[in-house]
Amino acid sequence: MSMSLFLSVPLILSLIYDENHLAFLLPAVLSFPLGFLLFELTESSAKLTLKEAFLIVSLGWFIASFIGAIPYLFYHFSFVDALFESTSGFTGTGASIIENLEVQPKSLLFWRSFEQWIGGMGIIVLFIAILPKLSVGGRQLFAAEAPGIDVEKVRPRIRDTAKILWKIYIFFSISLLIALIFEGMPFYDAFIHTFSTMGTGGFSSKNESIGFYSPLIQYTITLFMFIASTNFILHYKALRGRFGAYLRDEEFRFYLILGLISIIIITVSIFPEVGNLKEAIRLSSFQAISIMSATGFATADFDSWSWLPKLILFYLMFMGGSANSTAGGIKAVRILLILKYCLREIRKTIHPSAISSIRLNGRVVDEKIINTVVSFFLLYIFLFLTSSLILTSFGYDLITSFSASITCISNVGPGLGLVGPAENFAFLHPIAKLTLVFCMIAGRLELLPLLMILYPGFWKE
Amino acid sequence: MSMSLFLSVPLILSLIYDENHLAFLLPAVLSFPLGFLLFELTESSAKLTLKEAFLIVSLGWFIASFIGAIPYLFYHFSFVDALFESTSGFTGTGASIIENLEVQPKSLLFWRSFEQWIGGMGIIVLFIAILPKLSVGGRQLFAAEAPGIDVEKVRPRIRDTAKILWKIYIFFSISLLIALIFEGMPFYDAFIHTFSTMGTGGFSSKNESIGFYSPLIQYTITLFMFIASTNFILHYKALRGRFGAYLRDEEFRFYLILGLISIIIITVSIFPEVGNLKEAIRLSSFQAISIMSATGFATADFDSWSWLPKLILFYLMFMGGSANSTAGGIKAVRILLILKYCLREIRKTIHPSAISSIRLNGRVVDEKIINTVVSFFLLYIFLFLTSSLILTSFGYDLITSFSASITCISNVGPGLGLVGPAENFAFLHPIAKLTLVFCMIAGRLELLPLLMILYPGFWKE
Repeated sequence: MSMSLFLSVPLILSLIYDENHLAFLLPAVLSFPLGFLLFELTESSAKLTLKEAFLIVSLGWFIASFIGAIPYLFYHFSFVDALFESTSGFTGTGASIIENLEVQPKSLLFWRSFEQWIGGMGIIVLFIAILPKLSVGGRQLFAAEAPGIDVEKVRPRIRDTAKILWKIYIFFSISLLIALIFEGMPFYDAFIHTFSTMGTGGFSSKNESIGFYSPLIQYTITLFMFIASTNFILHYKALRGRFGAYLRDEEFRFYLILGLISIIIITVSIFPEVGNLKEAIRLSSFQAISIMSATGFATADFDSWSWLPKLILFYLMFMGGSANSTAGGIKAVRILLILKYCLREIRKTIHPSAISSIRLNGRVVDEKIINTVVSFFLLYIFLFLTSSLILTSFGYDLITSFSASITCISNVGPGLGLVGPAENFAFLHPIAKLTLVFCMIAGRLELLPLLMILYPGFWKE
Repeated sequence: MSMSLFLSVPLILSLIYDENHLAFLLPAVLSFPLGFLLFELTESSAKLTLKEAFLIVSLGWFIASFIGAIPYLFYHFSFVDALFESTSGFTGTGASIIENLEVQPKSLLFWRSFEQWIGGMGIIVLFIAILPKLSVGGRQLFAAEAPGIDVEKVRPRIRDTAKILWKIYIFFSISLLIALIFEGMPFYDAFIHTFSTMGTGGFSSKNESIGFYSPLIQYTITLFMFIASTNFILHYKALRGRFGAYLRDEEFRFYLILGLISIIIITVSIFPEVGNLKEAIRLSSFQAISIMSATGFATADFDSWSWLPKLILFYLMFMGGSANSTAGGIKAVRILLILKYCLREIRKTIHPSAISSIRLNGRVVDEKIINTVVSFFLLYIFLFLTSSLILTSFGYDLITSFSASITCISNVGPGLGLVGPAENFAFLHPIAKLTLVFCMIAGRLELLPLLMILYPGFWKE
């Protein structure tokens, strides 16, 4: 039913710009009764079982992507292409099959970016309020301090948490929108890029992406990509006056330091070619933060860079942003916990009798959560390896297959090689595209809800 | 002191072939008093501490590689190149910096392969008798049934275990030697290739590697590469009449099935190009087993194959062979345990209250060992990523950097791209070569002994 509401925005735009309004009218009209039907069918059940919750989370994203794909079908997109583009939108990936953006209808490009912003709203709630309850990938640990969740109460208020976080999301979105308009970006473009930035999506309305705009705009978007990929619980604390919350958080420090190291290495690597230190810093910080935050905007064709900066960007694609943000990827806090897990094992081998626990922000982390985090990482790698294998079976080279897989699983957008930032995903075989559609949703939902419904044991009993 | 004895074999050869015998005489004479000195210095200490054991294991391989490098210095090899070749020998890697093998002195090529066979003897004892006591990477689990180890006794007989396993190693070596000579391989070549096969090394005396010889010889070596990469404890059981031990072992079945699947996919992939099913099967089985067993011989330039078979070989480079064999890599049993660990996590998320333990060969595996195995895997990946980063910083492409790193860590030999089977490692920057020397030894010792002495906490107290 919300979809129906969301679709009315591009519908109005299509009327203003005199474009095909049936493209939005049809799904808007279709989704309302569909939603109402689902609502009526499920309302009676007093309490969700764990399995039902997983099923709803997984199917929800698929259904949204399907409905969101309908407008594209009106513009000569094949079904697979429409689904790819729509899924890329809702999952905040930003991988595209559109070759020339600047000839596309304005209402469609608006919808594309709007999907990413809507997806961002969905993912914040999913990450902070829903997945922690399902114990997915250690989420219960990362969301422990979520606002509105009162541990003393039997029934934690998901609704309250969602409202608080959405307010923060909207606050930053409006701030960015005003900043972009103030910095000279046209009104329409400002909306498009605000949506894509805050949803860490990466869809642009320009073929040159953010490279089209002024350096000031580039730095503004760099900052907001970083904000969108930072833990929203920290934003919540900061907005209530506790600015120290950022630097007191171990994940934030780790994320910041990794970002700075990456920017320094990339700057040094591309400096000889760029020839201008200021520009080298601007390009490297934009690209590094764009990939780390899993946004995927570009101000340079980083695929033409030398191998060291490319490999760093490739590594960053795995990590992605912080927990409890709109960013995709394994998340900085999980990488941090895994490094601690490895160091502990080295310590244990030296001192077999010593008992050592892993701490995060000064508190001991439960071993069960550690195991969940580690297996999440392993499943992530496993999905990456499998997807790459499927892609190479269509003859695509290793760099293309590897980077297309990880950029979709981590919801980044551009990859390397044939799917580099100056290229697109149009040339891929339909089955390869469907594989990546699966990867985008699997990555977005943090694997387990989707892997679970594929696991035979799920359907027993 | 054993080195002195070993070096006398190529010394005799150099006299027979009238080649530079000083190349072997000098290290043979040098290593005896050095060994005697070390023996005298350390003999007094009644009981080794854990730290001393780690230090001896790590330094032992380095010292052997240094002494083994001396002969190469007599033949216009740079110091780094000599060390690379010698380390590649002792670690059973088989990566080479020699561009044209067929013009090299016979005694040197003999020494090169002999180093791999000696390394194989060392590694069997290390894997089955020493690392399990140091609890490295779950080794205590894999060596639980090692012959000669009597759990009832306070002091397990390492010496007895070593003797039994060496007998098996020598038994298979002699069998292969006789088979090769019987199948028409010249006497000298048969020795060279027996040493390299049983040590799962991969050094050949021919530029075409095993592709130079008849299909019969190729199949014989395929079989013995498989034997050398199979758990020697199973061979021990089989040689005592318990042939069922192979198929009763979960790791063996897993290793066999993965091998067969790989061979089938590769055969199907290369068939259109090869045009002959029989030849496609021969080429794919040789290459798959050569990489899986971490030997690294070649009968085809697989780098010229399409991407799917190349990616499969790339994946196999990570796994390597079975535990308790001369093969390198993560080992099949660890991959199996990691898959079980991931599946358990999916089950746990569906049924949070269910307690499920991981079993291997019907017995419950201790959670501590699971953690050790998982962190071993993670450290392995971490070393791979770091080494690749160092290599790309010298400008080498991603395929070359990735495959050179993993082929050295897993002690395989050839990689893809610039280090493919038709190429060699000569062109690499000296620092890149030293990085790979480190990788070869780290991989051979299963990381922890080496990582441990690099860990600052090791040197405290």
